[in-house]
Amino acid sequence: MSLLKVLRATDLIRSHSALRWCRHTGSFPRYDYDLVVLGGGSAGLACAKEAVDCGARVLCFDYVKPTPVGTKWGIGGTCVNVGCIPKKLMHQASLLGEAVHEAVAYGWNVDDRNLRPDWRKLVRSVQNHIKSVNWVTRVDLRDKKVEYVNSMGAFVDSHTIMYYPKPGQEGDRRQVTAKYVVVAVGGRPRYPDIPGAMELGITSDDIFSYEREPGRTLVVGAGYVGLECACFLKGLGYDPTVMVRSIVLRGFDRQMSELLAAMMSERGVSFLNTTVPSSVERQSDGRLLVRYLNTTTQTVGSDVFDTVLWAIGRRGLIDDLNLGAAGVKTLNDKIVVDASEATNVPHIFAVGDIIHGRPELTPVAILSGRLLARRLFAGSTQRMDYADVATTVFTPLEYSCVGMSEESAIELHGADNIEVFHGYYKPTEFFIPQKSVRHCYLKAVAEMAGDQRILGLHYIGPVAGEVIQGFAAALKSGLTVKTLLNTVGIHPTTAEEFTRLSITKRSGRDPTPASCCS
Amino acid sequence: MSLLKVLRATDLIRSHSALRWCRHTGSFPRYDYDLVVLGGGSAGLACAKEAVDCGARVLCFDYVKPTPVGTKWGIGGTCVNVGCIPKKLMHQASLLGEAVHEAVAYGWNVDDRNLRPDWRKLVRSVQNHIKSVNWVTRVDLRDKKVEYVNSMGAFVDSHTIMYYPKPGQEGDRRQVTAKYVVVAVGGRPRYPDIPGAMELGITSDDIFSYEREPGRTLVVGAGYVGLECACFLKGLGYDPTVMVRSIVLRGFDRQMSELLAAMMSERGVSFLNTTVPSSVERQSDGRLLVRYLNTTTQTVGSDVFDTVLWAIGRRGLIDDLNLGAAGVKTLNDKIVVDASEATNVPHIFAVGDIIHGRPELTPVAILSGRLLARRLFAGSTQRMDYADVATTVFTPLEYSCVGMSEESAIELHGADNIEVFHGYYKPTEFFIPQKSVRHCYLKAVAEMAGDQRILGLHYIGPVAGEVIQGFAAALKSGLTVKTLLNTVGIHPTTAEEFTRLSITKRSGRDPTPASCCS
Repeated sequence: MSLLKVLRATDLIRSHSALRWCRHTGSFPRYDYDLVVLGGGSAGLACAKEAVDCGARVLCFDYVKPTPVGTKWGIGGTCVNVGCIPKKLMHQASLLGEAVHEAVAYGWNVDDRNLRPDWRKLVRSVQNHIKSVNWVTRVDLRDKKVEYVNSMGAFVDSHTIMYYPKPGQEGDRRQVTAKYVVVAVGGRPRYPDIPGAMELGITSDDIFSYEREPGRTLVVGAGYVGLECACFLKGLGYDPTVMVRSIVLRGFDRQMSELLAAMMSERGVSFLNTTVPSSVERQSDGRLLVRYLNTTTQTVGSDVFDTVLWAIGRRGLIDDLNLGAAGVKTLNDKIVVDASEATNVPHIFAVGDIIHGRPELTPVAILSGRLLARRLFAGSTQRMDYADVATTVFTPLEYSCVGMSEESAIELHGADNIEVFHGYYKPTEFFIPQKSVRHCYLKAVAEMAGDQRILGLHYIGPVAGEVIQGFAAALKSGLTVKTLLNTVGIHPTTAEEFTRLSITKRSGRDPTPASCCS
Repeated sequence: MSLLKVLRATDLIRSHSALRWCRHTGSFPRYDYDLVVLGGGSAGLACAKEAVDCGARVLCFDYVKPTPVGTKWGIGGTCVNVGCIPKKLMHQASLLGEAVHEAVAYGWNVDDRNLRPDWRKLVRSVQNHIKSVNWVTRVDLRDKKVEYVNSMGAFVDSHTIMYYPKPGQEGDRRQVTAKYVVVAVGGRPRYPDIPGAMELGITSDDIFSYEREPGRTLVVGAGYVGLECACFLKGLGYDPTVMVRSIVLRGFDRQMSELLAAMMSERGVSFLNTTVPSSVERQSDGRLLVRYLNTTTQTVGSDVFDTVLWAIGRRGLIDDLNLGAAGVKTLNDKIVVDASEATNVPHIFAVGDIIHGRPELTPVAILSGRLLARRLFAGSTQRMDYADVATTVFTPLEYSCVGMSEESAIELHGADNIEVFHGYYKPTEFFIPQKSVRHCYLKAVAEMAGDQRILGLHYIGPVAGEVIQGFAAALKSGLTVKTLLNTVGIHPTTAEEFTRLSITKRSGRDPTPASCCS
């Protein structure tokens, strides 16, 4: 880690010491850099690297403030350090525990009676992988000649960024100028404004490097982060409870979300519905007493947990940027951008989770950052297409979708103009270990008329992300129900179930499967 | 099983005893049935059930001749009994053994040092599942009012089929007439014409119900059946050797096929290249001595195995149909059909593996059978579209593809008009157990011009069938490279690697991945 945090002083001196011929503008530059990127996460790094590939001189600032309980990490942003990557590894660990039981059912001579994970070993393995990615990221930046400062940058004016080369040593203040600035500082988890929240609770920023076994865990929040955390904790043998303020997976298709919650309940995840936390206190035995209010019944309650994990949403990290000095407009804690990711200040842009009203997803961040760099420095006119972005919730049966929810489609087109094809299905592999197939379900939301253009696809089942990705490309290519049902399945897979969808909701016919293979 | 084999005598008497009003033709019928289907596999059953749904009177014959070593099975055909289904279950069993080792790497307290499968338990579980599918299939036929005779049907003339209600009791010969006949008898594995082949060798018809542990196994043949069998045997801890006459996976993309063979070698599967078997003898210790010839070096050799499995191809089951009496033309051991699956006799059709020159795949059989029934009995004009049928080879890293191989594309369009995008990749889950990523590779074969329409997609990696299915729908929707690269990935998956393909073969650039997540 230490290397990652060392200020590359020689690089900086070199870059600041003299005006250099600019490959991009073909002149001696008016600014120290063609581009300064604030934030070394997926969006910022993708943009910075692409900009250098296009011939620009680029400086990237990245700095991670420790969490209230002291967790910190290296370069790469949320995805690599406290997001997708550790989450997917914990998810995989959880699935592998399930696989051990299945292996026994298939005849392997394994003793699965007292199956337990070694939490510390798992955390160490996850963190080792993250550190190797940090390292590769750092080497990649050096190879690509992206200058990098491990410090926070803030606006002095719309073309000038100040920073302290060594955070904390405020005597050594420096500044650089840039033709363009891209803000890509991302977001961090919110804490509720209740006693004990920050001192005693943790978030997804902490859990993947948490030294102590989580034990009985209260997960507050039922967005995808909360559900994923609860599910891998359950899969690892802990005892999670999800506290839901209003609904699970707000913004996702309602039927699929409810089905996912039912799947979690069947697997032993507890839910506290329509409930909000009031306080967290540490008991004399070290455990955490959480008081809460059921907003439907207006009854108060309390329970004791080993760990409390806040998953109530994320806020944009605009506070330390001094955006006012640059005149950049914000909305709540995000930055407002137009279709070309420009802020109200034309030479200042924003990409990734810091922008307002766009999907907070790594591949969106990467692609939008990369396309922005090409527009700024390679004459491209291609804009990011935010339509039909697929996403996956990595619960043990995963939920993946692309395009519209059934509700959105009905709202936009009217119920009479929408046809929904749906079906339950039984994965072949589930039979021998007698796994529940109750929640294996998929649906296609389509226009009623003509060849029935598909507006949305939804799938709950194994490897949902792998299943939906190709269909996302198909939606972008104008997939219709006619074409879907004319596509030959790959047998036996679960993805092929999309090609077998023949029952409409409107028909009222039973969507449970009868025969296999004919 | 016994129920499945009981002749439904009452049904037959009912149907034969009187002329019944025909819903389909709207008249008293000239024939006993609107449709007789020969063969109760995927194609035949799909066709029969759809025909009944369209109002036709349908009779289906199905009979399985035991293999040389006496293996037999119930209704449903190859896929259910001795094909896709047991193959996928054995594949899954093999993957679960690997998963146990991975679980240890992720921190689960499992002792994986003497990991062994219980072959008999596995076979019993697989067979139990098959029997349950046989049962469901039988119930499904009864529910759908498809009449079923567990006997072999043969032509008397082009509208008349004879059979013995109880096979073996040739005194009781019966016959029925039909307006249309669909031949869907499928195929069975070939045996080589060498001493000992039939007496001492087995095939994929036997392996999934094989009582004895296979032990050291010679798999003769390197088509997908041979490779899949060798791989699940290896995964289950046995010691397979694949004997290759000329090339592995004839008909598939050469680069991908060679990569797959390399993956198998890395995992400990042995290969005997350019080698053909000469004889099989049983030694005094009960093991099998196989003599063979290397056709390149013209040297002879021999080795001793516990099991010899022939996987040298399949032949169509035309011999017992008395096709001459109906005047139906054949080519080699298959039936020649036109684009509407009609034989040279206009009211006789063929679907499934028995037809010449079409992909031998279950979903192809099902869809073509179903579409044929709709054309015959529901006024449909829709024909089976055999283009761009995706398929998967279920080796431990699976290989899935849709559309053209690189060779075919170059042959059809010329090398200058083809652009191939390719890349190696590293699945996130592989890092912790340090699984080899050497053969994780994918490519897109596209037209050079314009938006670069994609002609073929190829992928080696985990859950390849699940990954490619959606892309098959995308290809049918006209997927271009432009659209593919504009499709946002689902992170972290392996399927998203298709959306990150940026390196062309022509460029000569290194297709190994650098950074993750930016």
